[in-house]
Amino acid sequence: MTEHYLDNSATTRVSEASAETALRLMREEYANPSSLHSKGFSASKELESARQVVASAIGADSTEIYFTSGGTEANNLAIFGTAYAHKRKGMHIVSTATEHSSVYESMLQLRKEGFEVTFISPDSFGRISAEDVLNAVTDKTILVSVMYINNEVGAINPIADIAAGLKRKAPSVIFHVDAVQAFGKTDFKVQKLSAHLLTLSGHKIHAPKGVGALYVKKGVRILPRTFGGKQEGKIRPGTESLPLIGAFSSAVRELDISQSIHTVSTLRSYLWDRLSVMKDIVINSPQNGSPFILNFSVMGIRSETMLHHLAALGVYVSSGSACSKGGKSHVLSSMGLADNIADSAIRVSFSKYNTIADCDALLEGVRQGMEKLAKR
Amino acid sequence: MTEHYLDNSATTRVSEASAETALRLMREEYANPSSLHSKGFSASKELESARQVVASAIGADSTEIYFTSGGTEANNLAIFGTAYAHKRKGMHIVSTATEHSSVYESMLQLRKEGFEVTFISPDSFGRISAEDVLNAVTDKTILVSVMYINNEVGAINPIADIAAGLKRKAPSVIFHVDAVQAFGKTDFKVQKLSAHLLTLSGHKIHAPKGVGALYVKKGVRILPRTFGGKQEGKIRPGTESLPLIGAFSSAVRELDISQSIHTVSTLRSYLWDRLSVMKDIVINSPQNGSPFILNFSVMGIRSETMLHHLAALGVYVSSGSACSKGGKSHVLSSMGLADNIADSAIRVSFSKYNTIADCDALLEGVRQGMEKLAKR
Repeated sequence: MTEHYLDNSATTRVSEASAETALRLMREEYANPSSLHSKGFSASKELESARQVVASAIGADSTEIYFTSGGTEANNLAIFGTAYAHKRKGMHIVSTATEHSSVYESMLQLRKEGFEVTFISPDSFGRISAEDVLNAVTDKTILVSVMYINNEVGAINPIADIAAGLKRKAPSVIFHVDAVQAFGKTDFKVQKLSAHLLTLSGHKIHAPKGVGALYVKKGVRILPRTFGGKQEGKIRPGTESLPLIGAFSSAVRELDISQSIHTVSTLRSYLWDRLSVMKDIVINSPQNGSPFILNFSVMGIRSETMLHHLAALGVYVSSGSACSKGGKSHVLSSMGLADNIADSAIRVSFSKYNTIADCDALLEGVRQGMEKLAKR
Repeated sequence: MTEHYLDNSATTRVSEASAETALRLMREEYANPSSLHSKGFSASKELESARQVVASAIGADSTEIYFTSGGTEANNLAIFGTAYAHKRKGMHIVSTATEHSSVYESMLQLRKEGFEVTFISPDSFGRISAEDVLNAVTDKTILVSVMYINNEVGAINPIADIAAGLKRKAPSVIFHVDAVQAFGKTDFKVQKLSAHLLTLSGHKIHAPKGVGALYVKKGVRILPRTFGGKQEGKIRPGTESLPLIGAFSSAVRELDISQSIHTVSTLRSYLWDRLSVMKDIVINSPQNGSPFILNFSVMGIRSETMLHHLAALGVYVSSGSACSKGGKSHVLSSMGLADNIADSAIRVSFSKYNTIADCDALLEGVRQGMEKLAKR
């Protein structure tokens, strides 16, 4: 059976170059980068070269990149690290109702610890308004955390506008951006974005799972979340996973953002045009959203039922976010979608490896499913 | 130049089977284990099978194993997770002055947060007395954290005795054991050890860096340190690094503890016999310590000088712990070693891959170094 993997916002296939880099580092550079001998120094050079690659990709300095075990850890470090470092200045945080669970749940935890968190609601397509965010900022606000691109519907948030507004209104507020679904999928540099903290993940861009990074703008103070050795500037101790970090940098080297955008935009338009004329299909993504994501509902058929039907045909998609396995999506709820729409939502997410054949297989599968499953 | 890698307590060479498992999982099982479709389910099955392998190795149930990004994260999770979950019962913790920095620094952080921490001092060979630990326990104690085998000198601590004493004296106290240097190097099962929490690391047993696990005995409550998705029972959210977790289980499958102990014991005795008769050499390890570690001082030659001299000959060793890159070892200090002994300490650490030739190369290098470097 031919595989049609359309679940790339959950995770991506590891590129061959990235996998081979991991293998080379496991075989040849197995020393501890913290070891003082030449074998350790050699590993340390590989580490710093990987850091340089990741930094360059977002226009950062390599001293501003801290490797983590993934996006979840980087988001936690950004949020708790800022909250604890700056709580004397105030205990108010502004975030959104559409954040990834690693931001959202961290905010709920901070609430339990006495912080006040304002969650901005999105419009019906999952988009956050810069004005709403800025209006929520008070003189007690220490942190604003807004995701760049939403992982469930692909809504693109006005990050640069929020940053510019914060600079005017509240220049001491730390601005964190979860850029996990944006990195490698839209061309941005930290200078233009003006974020103080920015989260990256490897496995959404064809690196293996288990590695990510937090960009911390020079001069911005955050407290560590983990304690131990002196690795990663003591902000994130623990022996660095050189195989995964090297594999991450290898995947970053392979990024050709404009080419990828071109590829997936064609696929998304193709799918959009065909889905939008089908009866009983509602599209939940904004038309001007990320070209990598298309979320739609097949009315009357529950997400999981359709998902399993498609998987049996070799077409792999997601119902909401993979991270909320089985749970109700807080993102779709926050968009104010009716229950019957939210309960039948399917997320298709593309990568540069997808083709029109994948779209055709999906369309055929959805059509079959609507006939077969609706009869039940 | 032939390599003589004798720095295995810093990190180990990745075994070929472990590296190939990582490669296979990167290539073939790239789906997100949390994805609901069959490709996700297949990844999830691999994950659970790896968990079973790690659990079995220590006599645990697979539901008691939580994968982390390594030993540092597992130690942090155990310590903060217990401290925060049980602080209403009391805010006193007992640990030791010889712990790895990921335990030691976590304790210092808890002190800053208002917890009282008693650090038990070792004897002059780095050994902790069970009696000292038990005597330090008060009715305010909620956590005792003692490492199984010290990473710098190889002292073996009386874990089972401490556990038995705690059961008698203070059965509600949580007992955490950092077993990073013990796992795969001494045969133990959690039942016999009677620890509630136990830290494991992959890269000390020929798995890649970036993966570890925390054993949490059924019924023991700890709070998460990271917030996000539902992975790892919500105790440690974030997309699981299946390639590394699989590679970890692969390295665990390869463990042949009695054979390894036999191999390294021979090497350590060989080295011990030759070093102990050399002038100006002081052995810092206890004779009945772990056969995997031998720490000695070459009087009059600073650790780093000797280390670089040896590295130039292809012999890789450590000065104290790799994790304390350049810093003074808090472990050697706590043993009461004179400064000139501590400053000239060299740690040799073996793996099953080492041979007598490695020992001979080391001995020859040390002899050369003593002649050449002492003249300066």
